[in-house]
Amino acid sequence: MSAENIDNNISYEILEDLEDDFEEVELELLRQQAKLTKDLYAKRAKVVSEIPNFWPLVFEQAPPDIDEYVQPTDSAVLLSSLVNLSVERFELPNGDPRSISIKFEFSENEYFENTVLEKKFWWRRNKDGWAGLVSEPVKINWKADKDLTSGMLDLVYQVWEDDKAGKGDDTEAKKKLKSQMESTGLDGVSFFAWFGFRGLSISEEENQAALKEEQEKRQARKEGKEVEEEVEEEDEDDDDDEYEMEIFPTADDLAVCIAEDLWPGAIKYFLAAQEQDALSDINFESDEEMDDEDDAQPSKKRKA
Amino acid sequence: MSAENIDNNISYEILEDLEDDFEEVELELLRQQAKLTKDLYAKRAKVVSEIPNFWPLVFEQAPPDIDEYVQPTDSAVLLSSLVNLSVERFELPNGDPRSISIKFEFSENEYFENTVLEKKFWWRRNKDGWAGLVSEPVKINWKADKDLTSGMLDLVYQVWEDDKAGKGDDTEAKKKLKSQMESTGLDGVSFFAWFGFRGLSISEEENQAALKEEQEKRQARKEGKEVEEEVEEEDEDDDDDEYEMEIFPTADDLAVCIAEDLWPGAIKYFLAAQEQDALSDINFESDEEMDDEDDAQPSKKRKA
Repeated sequence: MSAENIDNNISYEILEDLEDDFEEVELELLRQQAKLTKDLYAKRAKVVSEIPNFWPLVFEQAPPDIDEYVQPTDSAVLLSSLVNLSVERFELPNGDPRSISIKFEFSENEYFENTVLEKKFWWRRNKDGWAGLVSEPVKINWKADKDLTSGMLDLVYQVWEDDKAGKGDDTEAKKKLKSQMESTGLDGVSFFAWFGFRGLSISEEENQAALKEEQEKRQARKEGKEVEEEVEEEDEDDDDDEYEMEIFPTADDLAVCIAEDLWPGAIKYFLAAQEQDALSDINFESDEEMDDEDDAQPSKKRKA
Repeated sequence: MSAENIDNNISYEILEDLEDDFEEVELELLRQQAKLTKDLYAKRAKVVSEIPNFWPLVFEQAPPDIDEYVQPTDSAVLLSSLVNLSVERFELPNGDPRSISIKFEFSENEYFENTVLEKKFWWRRNKDGWAGLVSEPVKINWKADKDLTSGMLDLVYQVWEDDKAGKGDDTEAKKKLKSQMESTGLDGVSFFAWFGFRGLSISEEENQAALKEEQEKRQARKEGKEVEEEVEEEDEDDDDDEYEMEIFPTADDLAVCIAEDLWPGAIKYFLAAQEQDALSDINFESDEEMDDEDDAQPSKKRKA
């Protein structure tokens, strides 16, 4: 279908072109940001590694968009054993700067055997023009009776393995997961269910083909050619590849929030936690009361 | 007072240094962004000026952080008469890229005489180390019985004039404003009260002196010198310059939200409004239904 007209013959395509150009700038700025902050993050990692409880205290002060997902037991796990967090735009320098990996490192704890839990999110595009973050489930080796997701994460992982093996829609794991999700719902689900997120199923081939098609369309529009939009005959089947058994459906948003708020703002949150906990029983007070006016209003300061 | 130690002799000053360095990078990225998007925003302004109701429709789809402040009557004003919005980082290229001006342009309407309402926010630092956005009240020439702030914005403006004239704390306007704020509260206050925001009172001289002092401290820390922090003897009087009669206390946050979300995302919000209103009575449908899959999930797409 060719360009549709709004009023006065302004076509949607002009707006889309503009959005494409803005998107290019944003990607360039993300690349610049990664380049300009690389050494600083390395330095920060070194400094904070010598501060006990740095990352648990950061999580304690996490903004609502993150905090709402951290249940009391999750907090206890983080507080007792989270020793490091790191975020990387792992497809740089040549790939998409929006792909992010988030790595949690833990000391020995009573909940699981893993010392590293790393979740990767790939920025992918599909044939229908959707673009966003997709992921793969990460297995957690829970200790006996300590599974904070009540078995759901294990089932998600099994379903994933079954899907890769082409076992169809009728496997034991799928039936169990579906029935568990229906009976218990997802309210109050553990933060650790986040590791189970898959998102849309987009193969690397589909992504590459979609990217190429999109770039060709953009190029053609730039050259003023009329671009033939494919008529989507299979419109009704659009969510064929939508994965319905997501135990943490907003995991992609949460990942972005960790990468773009908690991670860059970690020192600010840590200092806020210091102030708040100054008189609490967490073994973290300094001898003197903080007098740093600079950090007295973390929500007001240094927002750009 | 010299650096306080957390555990293991990691001083707060190292963390502050790091934060300063990260802040420098953020400012540099804001400058880059302004440079790289300048022509695109000019092009967008030209394109959208030919689309009737572009900006009212953008506001109709504004995210909750903005929408919560737009009362039904405000919406009616915007819908009937907002013809343009523009955001500028007006202290660039040499000043602070966090200073923003937000300009609303209106067609003739039944509420006020102004065709332009421009509010400027200056990024300023005070002697106590606080940094953030401050502003000046903007007068709106309301038509008879059409003041959406029930007189509060006029009073704020009068108080501002009184303060500039050094009339002290006991003026008629101050008393009236205070009593009105106490009796009616600020729940459900009009969006247009936003134009009354002042924030902390920081003179240009104080800002320059504070900037200079801060830069000297940073430099000294970089050179490894121990930095003498001033002992704040007047700690108790710290909010001396806090302006207590703010009729829109979160105006600075809202300004940032407009500048960093609504403004760059305007096309996305407009397209979302198009879809939502496709069958409504607003005179804005195109002949054919939108089939653009790309924009079907504005919240998922193109988030970086």
